[in-house]
Parts: sequence; structure tokens; C-alpha cells
Amino acid sequence: MITDPTTLHILHIFYLVALAAEAMTAALAAGRRSMDWVGVILLACVTGLGGGSVRDLLLDHHPLSWVGSPSLLLVTSGAAILTIMIARHMHRLQRLFLFLDAVGLVVFSVIGSNIAIGLDQPILVVIAAGMISGCVGGVLRDILCNDVPLLLRAELYATVSIITSAIFAGGGRLGFDHNLVLLLAVATGLCLRMLALRYNWSMPKFIYKHDLD
Amino acid sequence: MITDPTTLHILHIFYLVALAAEAMTAALAAGRRSMDWVGVILLACVTGLGGGSVRDLLLDHHPLSWVGSPSLLLVTSGAAILTIMIARHMHRLQRLFLFLDAVGLVVFSVIGSNIAIGLDQPILVVIAAGMISGCVGGVLRDILCNDVPLLLRAELYATVSIITSAIFAGGGRLGFDHNLVLLLAVATGLCLRMLALRYNWSMPKFIYKHDLD
Amino acid sequence: MITDPTTLHILHIFYLVALAAEAMTAALAAGRRSMDWVGVILLACVTGLGGGSVRDLLLDHHPLSWVGSPSLLLVTSGAAILTIMIARHMHRLQRLFLFLDAVGLVVFSVIGSNIAIGLDQPILVVIAAGMISGCVGGVLRDILCNDVPLLLRAELYATVSIITSAIFAGGGRLGFDHNLVLLLAVATGLCLRMLALRYNWSMPKFIYKHDLD
Repeated sequence: MITDPTTLHILHIFYLVALAAEAMTAALAAGRRSMDWVGVILLACVTGLGGGSVRDLLLDHHPLSWVGSPSLLLVTSGAAILTIMIARHMHRLQRLFLFLDAVGLVVFSVIGSNIAIGLDQPILVVIAAGMISGCVGGVLRDILCNDVPLLLRAELYATVSIITSAIFAGGGRLGFDHNLVLLLAVATGLCLRMLALRYNWSMPKFIYKHDLD
Repeated sequence: MITDPTTLHILHIFYLVALAAEAMTAALAAGRRSMDWVGVILLACVTGLGGGSVRDLLLDHHPLSWVGSPSLLLVTSGAAILTIMIARHMHRLQRLFLFLDAVGLVVFSVIGSNIAIGLDQPILVVIAAGMISGCVGGVLRDILCNDVPLLLRAELYATVSIITSAIFAGGGRLGFDHNLVLLLAVATGLCLRMLALRYNWSMPKFIYKHDLD
Repeated sequence: MITDPTTLHILHIFYLVALAAEAMTAALAAGRRSMDWVGVILLACVTGLGGGSVRDLLLDHHPLSWVGSPSLLLVTSGAAILTIMIARHMHRLQRLFLFLDAVGLVVFSVIGSNIAIGLDQPILVVIAAGMISGCVGGVLRDILCNDVPLLLRAELYATVSIITSAIFAGGGRLGFDHNLVLLLAVATGLCLRMLALRYNWSMPKFIYKHDLD
């Protein structure tokens, strides 16, 4: 578990950047469905803060992040409003956003794992906590937009989150230096995600045509 | 926080009426999708009690309303069965239902805020608790019916809930008489919702056409 | 409440079989939507363990089953991987699967009720806990696959779960021998479900054509 104040501080800054980035991609998804401004803000809050909330509910870890620090709601709401204002320039920032989204995935995963480690959870639960933190926000966004969650269909999204969490949890368990493990987990996750985007990597699909019911 | 027994009693009666009304509109939504009777009852229970349950889960406020008072399940189930029986006359009651639905939105919001105030939550969380109580039941209904939640698309639904909660929370924080604040919050919310329905008011939409991913 | 160690042991074995069966039907549903392997595994975990998790969240019963016994995640993940490997032979096992799915429904319902009884919940909450354990996993599966939940549309699925839970809860409340009540509840639920499948029994549907909003 990371307890070094400097590392936690840096991680928190990355968390805020990632939170804003997730909120902004959610706002764009809302805009594609012509939601109203309040809907845009709500979808941004749910997407940014939903993964951590589900993790904390499942682990009985209270208060939830935004209940303890309500200013996080201002970060996600502010990012949503900013998105509405600069939407016409957003398509030029596509690459930046894909990068920030990857940062979000990886940072959320590491933070979620770290919380589960702090609760003395077994390693499978630590990895699950990382993946839930990293991925569930996007799943909630897709459910609210009435899509089959992207997570279940394509890209290495969940895989990246699981690998990042596994490196972080496993490295810590094996007694390596926490900052080193953190750096390794984040770097691996980030590279894997960017390479997957660049070369269209994906997991093999399971295709089943029979109707069982 | 409202602690006056008479006010709480009146609020509870309004709560039961609102609960039944929400259950009945959910039952009609189920009927539009030709669900079976058990499905109608379940959708009514989830819609009526889901918002408060999600609020209580997020705030770690146990037992949930229907776990502590299981008779609430009979109110929602009974309302659903009544709806099936009098369905052929329901379209004549459309105006009444829109009014009761507005009452539900406003009363649920005030009750949710009041619970969060009782838990000493900061004002942003109080407002969020009010909005979650008021709106999440309908969101769950729409998800289970496989629609994009109405909340995110149209009308002043969430806005009314936020404004009602904000007046209630803010007025209490500023030290005004609780009954007065309650009355003001409910009256403002109800007027705003009915006017929005009457004149088709809506928030501006955010329309974004580029594909980011 | 069942406390007899032998009975609990037998019930636990049936639970593991049912868990694997639910995970496998979820994996087939994932295959019908061409999800990738990680998506298949995640959907299997959510479907198998989601009902119990929601029940435990609502009743504030921690740790959740898979948090306390993370090996359950290996059961559902393993069942999903097995399904991918033997998928081409699965359609021949259709009858077996429908039977195992019925076992799952009934066993999950009884276990859920038993947990609520152990928490001294009133009988309506006990029945609700049984139904949530039995049915919510499938609802989550359908939401993630972007379908209207099967539960709300057809078959005696929820009804079987409610009747099983009611017999189990009611019989225990009336002071009958717990093993006898368990056997009666499971046998009734299983027969009802298999007969409903065989003769296409279903609850009457509620069909409503007017547009309220």
C-alpha cells in the first residue's frame, strides 16, 4: 500500500486530471445523444465518480470519495460545462483525449487497488477493486446511453486495467519498493493501452450462434 | 433538518401518496412493454423505492426504507395491481398523474435532502441526496425498460429536483424556520415542474456530432 | 434458519454447481453478442455473483460472498473459459442447462432467504432477499447485453423465486423442521419451473396502449 505522502500527492493530482478527462469524454457521449445540459453534467459525474463509488460500496468503504470530498462533484461538473463551451474545438484534441482517457484508466485502477490493499483484501479482490475503479464508470455511462458497454465488446480496456492492478498488487505483495511498483504498473498499463489503440489490438472474440433459450 | 412531528407526519402522508403515484406510472410503462403481472409489480417497486435505496446505499444509511418498513413494498405492489385493474380508465386521469408525479419528485427530493442533513453531510451532498431520491427511481425504470433515461434527455425533471433540494438545504443552513423553508421548496419545485410541463420548458441541449472514438 | 452443518454443506455444493451454470449461460449470452474473452468472463462473474452482491448491499451484509471467498471469482471465470472451449457442443446440452439454470434459481433463492432470516429480517424482506438473490444476476446480464430483462417479460422466473422463498420463509416461521422445509421449497420451485418450461406457462400480461407522457 502506498503511504508515502509525496507519492500520494502526485497520484491525487493525476487522479484529478483523469477525473476531468473522464467527465469530458462522458460529456461528449452525452452530446452525441443530444442530452440537455443537466443531463450532460449528471452523466459526467456518474462516469467520473461511478467506478470508485461502486468499488467502495462493494468493499463497504465509507464515506464514498465524493461524499467525503464533495468538491470532486465540482471538478466533474466543471469539466462537463467546459466541454459544452469548447465542444467545437474538441475534435482537434482527439489524440490528447485518448491519452488522458488511458491515464484515467490506469490511475483509477492503481488507486482502487491501493484502497483494497489498505483494507487488507486478498489479492484477487485487490485486482477486482482496481478493475472496478477503472472500468465501471464507463460501463455506467454506456448503460445510461443505452449502449452495450464498450468494455465488453472491444479493445483492451478491461485487460489493461486488470494487468495494471495485477502488477501493482503483485509487486507490492512480493515486497518490492512501492514507488517502483507504482511506476511499473502505470507505465505498463499506459503503454499497453496506447499500443492497443495504435495497432488496433483486441482480445479474441467469442462468437456463439445457437439459440439456447 | 425537520424534526417537528406534525410536519414529519404530513410529509410521510405525502410520501405515501407520491410512492403510489410513482408505482402507478411505472406500472403503465410496464404495460406499454407488455410485461407480465409480476414484472409490472417488480418495476413498480424498483421505481418507487429505488431512488431512496440508492441514496441510502451511497450514504451508508441503513436500514433502507423498505427493509425497515416492509409495508412500503405492499404500497407499491398494491398500486401496481390497482393500475392493472383500472388501466382502461387511466388515460382520463393523465393530468392528475402528471401532477402526482410532480408531487412525488418534489417530496422525494425534500425527504432525501432531509435525511442527508440528519447525517451532517455538506450542502453539495445534501443536494445530491435530494436529487438522487427524486430522480433515480425513474432512471432505473427507464434502464429496465431499455430506454435512454428520460431524465437525461428532456424536461426540467432533474433541474426541479436540484432547485427544490437547494432551496430546502440552503434555507435550513441559513437558519430560516424549517416549516417555512419546506413549504417554499415544495411550492417552488411544484410550480416550476407544472409550468415546465404546461409551456414545454426545457434546458438547452448539447449537440455534438463528431465521433471521438 | 438452516444451521445444520451437513445441510449447509450440501447446499454449498449445489450453490457452486448453480454458480457455474449461471456463469455458463451468461457466457453463451456474451457469445451471442460476439463479446471478447475478457467481456465473456466479466459478464459471467456479474451474472453469477451479482444477485447475491445486490442482496448483501441492500441488507448491509458484509463482506459480500466473493469478497469473503475470492475463489468464487475463479469458479465463475473458469466456467466462462470452459464455455468458450466447449461452445460447439453446448447446443446438445440445452436440456441439461435449462435444468441447471432452474436449480440455480431455486438454490440462490433459498440461500438468499436463509441469509435474511439470519439477519432477523421480517418475512417480506426475507422473500424479497430470496427473489433478489435468484433473479438480479440475470437482470444485470440482460442490462449489460442491452435487452429488456427477460425476468420482466416472460416465464415464471420471478414467480418461481418468490414462491420458493415464501415456502422456505413461511415454513421456517411456522416452526416446521428446517430440512423438510428446505426440501419442500426446492422441490416445489424446481417442479414449477420445469413444468412452466415444458408447457410454456406464463403469467398474464398487462398490455397498455395509451401514451401517458
